[in-house]
Amino acid sequence: MADQVILLNSSMSAFGMRVRIALIEKGIKYEHCEEDLNNKSDLLLKMNPVHKKIPTLIHNGKSVCESLIIVQYIDEVWNDRSPLLPSDPYQRAQARFWADFVDKNVHETTKGVLWSTKREEQEAANKFFETVKILEGELGDGPYFQAETFGFVDISLITFCSWFHVLEIFGKFSMEAKFPKIIAWAKRCMQRESVAKSLPDPKKIYEFVMERRKGLGLD
Amino acid sequence: MADQVILLNSSMSAFGMRVRIALIEKGIKYEHCEEDLNNKSDLLLKMNPVHKKIPTLIHNGKSVCESLIIVQYIDEVWNDRSPLLPSDPYQRAQARFWADFVDKNVHETTKGVLWSTKREEQEAANKFFETVKILEGELGDGPYFQAETFGFVDISLITFCSWFHVLEIFGKFSMEAKFPKIIAWAKRCMQRESVAKSLPDPKKIYEFVMERRKGLGLD
Repeated sequence: MADQVILLNSSMSAFGMRVRIALIEKGIKYEHCEEDLNNKSDLLLKMNPVHKKIPTLIHNGKSVCESLIIVQYIDEVWNDRSPLLPSDPYQRAQARFWADFVDKNVHETTKGVLWSTKREEQEAANKFFETVKILEGELGDGPYFQAETFGFVDISLITFCSWFHVLEIFGKFSMEAKFPKIIAWAKRCMQRESVAKSLPDPKKIYEFVMERRKGLGLD
Repeated sequence: MADQVILLNSSMSAFGMRVRIALIEKGIKYEHCEEDLNNKSDLLLKMNPVHKKIPTLIHNGKSVCESLIIVQYIDEVWNDRSPLLPSDPYQRAQARFWADFVDKNVHETTKGVLWSTKREEQEAANKFFETVKILEGELGDGPYFQAETFGFVDISLITFCSWFHVLEIFGKFSMEAKFPKIIAWAKRCMQRESVAKSLPDPKKIYEFVMERRKGLGLD
């Protein structure tokens, strides 16, 4: 019997994009269910009763939650193709460390730039720069993050790059001038079909951010 | 050549205790280096330059950081004995989910009870209760967390139980009366040599908390 794979998601979520990329990299057919986050479906509430968040993957009726856990699950179940984590335990630990670093730092500092007031914006931008500088220093010389092949850390980080365009507008800086290595890496990732198909149009992100900033009284 | 394993740690850290338990479960000989967190060693700063935190494991000269990542690393390197994560991908994902839940919720709500002011204490206690209630509901009927054998989620959670005694004093509640299943599970875990050897004397934790609360002007 063929696998039934359903992804409960919201297209603008950097976390949800990670799961889409992993599924496409593995060549897994899946059904994409767009959730209205202001009116969550009964299926989402049933399948992710603890956090009630997207992305939630449903594989043959059983749910897996939290994006990095889902990507590892996908890598372990469909382990006959396109490995996402390295096979060596030390390299796996390093990949988990940097994906965890992205989770703990990139998301927070990105939000800092986008939702900051005029008074906070310079400090917020500096925190974001510190984070990206650390990541740029760790990229290595290969085409992907510390690796010759596209994998776990690339997936965890590239989805935030779709927000760079709006970050540049609101933070008034040029990512390419500040972080040429990260931008070159991001462009390599964007050339992959899995990434190109999963990342939303920057215009849509801009509109989303504008609306949210208005709601927060920032503009 | 024998493995050289060094653990940079602080005995009172619930995160550090996790690594000690995993090393003892696997029967790995290691050197324990107690860090003064007010005056961190050059070795810690060199081996964990990003977070500069304990626990940091050094295995044959290479470092692994972040407690849950270290425990997974230990499980993958010494994979010939006492498995800590299940072999089935779905069960592994579930174990990772609950260990992540402990990280995101138990630590925060424990701190809430310990470092709250009089005015905040009831709300802090309620948040802690909500978290433990969810975990108690998920324990299952086996001797360990959703399992017949001691593993990853048990390790991630049991180290916070050494703080229950002080939580009861400062929060003015009885864990055993409120959460009999969790306390019965904790007692089973405490009977294991790995746990008994790794958890500090509750008296020491009480003294540590008293001192910290004085420093914060809470008593």
